[in-house]
Amino acid sequence: MLNKLVIVGVGLIGGSFALALKKAGYVRHVVGVGRSEKQLKLALQLKVIDAIETDLKAALSDADLVLIAAPVGQTENLFKQIAPHLTQGTVVTDAGSTKQNIAALAHKCLANHLTQFVPGHPIAGAEQSGVSAARADLFENKTTVLTPMPENDAKAIDVVSDAWNACGAMVKSMTPQQHDSIFAAVSHLPHLLAFTLVNYIAQRDDAETLFDFAASGFKDSTRIAGSSPEMWRDICVANRNALLKELTSYQRQLARMHELIDRSDASGIEAIFERAKAARQKYLKR
Amino acid sequence: MLNKLVIVGVGLIGGSFALALKKAGYVRHVVGVGRSEKQLKLALQLKVIDAIETDLKAALSDADLVLIAAPVGQTENLFKQIAPHLTQGTVVTDAGSTKQNIAALAHKCLANHLTQFVPGHPIAGAEQSGVSAARADLFENKTTVLTPMPENDAKAIDVVSDAWNACGAMVKSMTPQQHDSIFAAVSHLPHLLAFTLVNYIAQRDDAETLFDFAASGFKDSTRIAGSSPEMWRDICVANRNALLKELTSYQRQLARMHELIDRSDASGIEAIFERAKAARQKYLKR
Repeated sequence: MLNKLVIVGVGLIGGSFALALKKAGYVRHVVGVGRSEKQLKLALQLKVIDAIETDLKAALSDADLVLIAAPVGQTENLFKQIAPHLTQGTVVTDAGSTKQNIAALAHKCLANHLTQFVPGHPIAGAEQSGVSAARADLFENKTTVLTPMPENDAKAIDVVSDAWNACGAMVKSMTPQQHDSIFAAVSHLPHLLAFTLVNYIAQRDDAETLFDFAASGFKDSTRIAGSSPEMWRDICVANRNALLKELTSYQRQLARMHELIDRSDASGIEAIFERAKAARQKYLKR
Repeated sequence: MLNKLVIVGVGLIGGSFALALKKAGYVRHVVGVGRSEKQLKLALQLKVIDAIETDLKAALSDADLVLIAAPVGQTENLFKQIAPHLTQGTVVTDAGSTKQNIAALAHKCLANHLTQFVPGHPIAGAEQSGVSAARADLFENKTTVLTPMPENDAKAIDVVSDAWNACGAMVKSMTPQQHDSIFAAVSHLPHLLAFTLVNYIAQRDDAETLFDFAASGFKDSTRIAGSSPEMWRDICVANRNALLKELTSYQRQLARMHELIDRSDASGIEAIFERAKAARQKYLKR
């Protein structure tokens, strides 16, 4: 049970975390902090938060838990802003989609608070962003990955883990390296491919005609290209190395498909399509 | 109103066409022809068709309309099989996803029947295949593209167009070249990218772990990789030239993204993501 929760960045993720904990009766008071006064006022109006605080010192005073839920490019600044006001009783976590850079920034900007900062990443989201898209059930039966640091206090890890469990999420732990490598493959690469596909169509002279005939397959396969450009820009920069590795491998696979089609290798093409379909069906049955 | 409709290939598309026309009261008798006895028996049981016919001459006798709804790689054989039994009163159409090759095959195999074969392509589908996935409303408010041939009898075009309208579809006409170029970009390329992505993940040693953490973004963006491998193999081969052109252009775009990420060009990355998001939102509002 949390007495005071501070959400830094009350958007889809931060807002849903607050709503889920309120619904679970797991928090008494939620304070919102952020760069957008409009989003904060909307969050207050939607009862996602109980108070807006512009003074960080006041916000962090007596806080049990702080969730940083901003695009990962904001993290360094936010760490620098909160560091002077962090007291021992406060646990800090984040919801960033990349974890190696966050751990590095923590060592740089929260050097005196490494026991109490536990990096995390809830594997849930939607292409909508902003607090108006927040939902109390966003994390239900979803996974939240924690990448605890060697310096972490075991009790701090428990505080973060218990809060995610209270949201209905399953908590899994791994190293930041494992995290960034896995999500480069199953999340960052697919987003990059979708953004690139829509942009490719959109920049053509015949884009209007092409969109006229784009059907449900196109629509579904590019849903994630409706995600926040700022958030995904930050992810591409923060997880650059792992993403480039995945992108290079995928480009190699595409070049192979190009070759197979170029020589009209029907059985070679079919073998790949068969394996993809079978793997996807198996994955859906999980 | 059709007295007798013959469906060659009673799967998702052929079955849905039959169901839609029955629901509209637009057809008296539907005969199913196909290579899979099991699918045909299931179609009969589901009342998608009224009779199974193994003798093509009997099937085509007195038929008003024949729909060929098989993977496009089957078309040549099917044209050869039906040609000897086609009489003047019968109009033939198809549902193939590629149109230049179909027109060429018609000139080769249906040379004496060019007035009465009107190529078509309903822009509707699902990743499921087979007659059990057929639905009377599959084509409602969807587009069916016709690529009439210069030799076509105007009345034959009307027969096909009217039948699709009776299914609730909007009919649009274009040349086979336009068709193949448009669908290479908005359908064939996205399918190829999705199949390649799932295969890329599936063939890795850590595939199980990766699928464990693949979330809704991955699931949606790869839905079309659950489509029929045979159907899509045939499309890749039949529309090879247009697809290779699109694939080459997309590969160039990916190489550009690779460069932008490699040099951590945050604003260059964001500009592309912004344009993709804006274009997709505009497209969804249509």
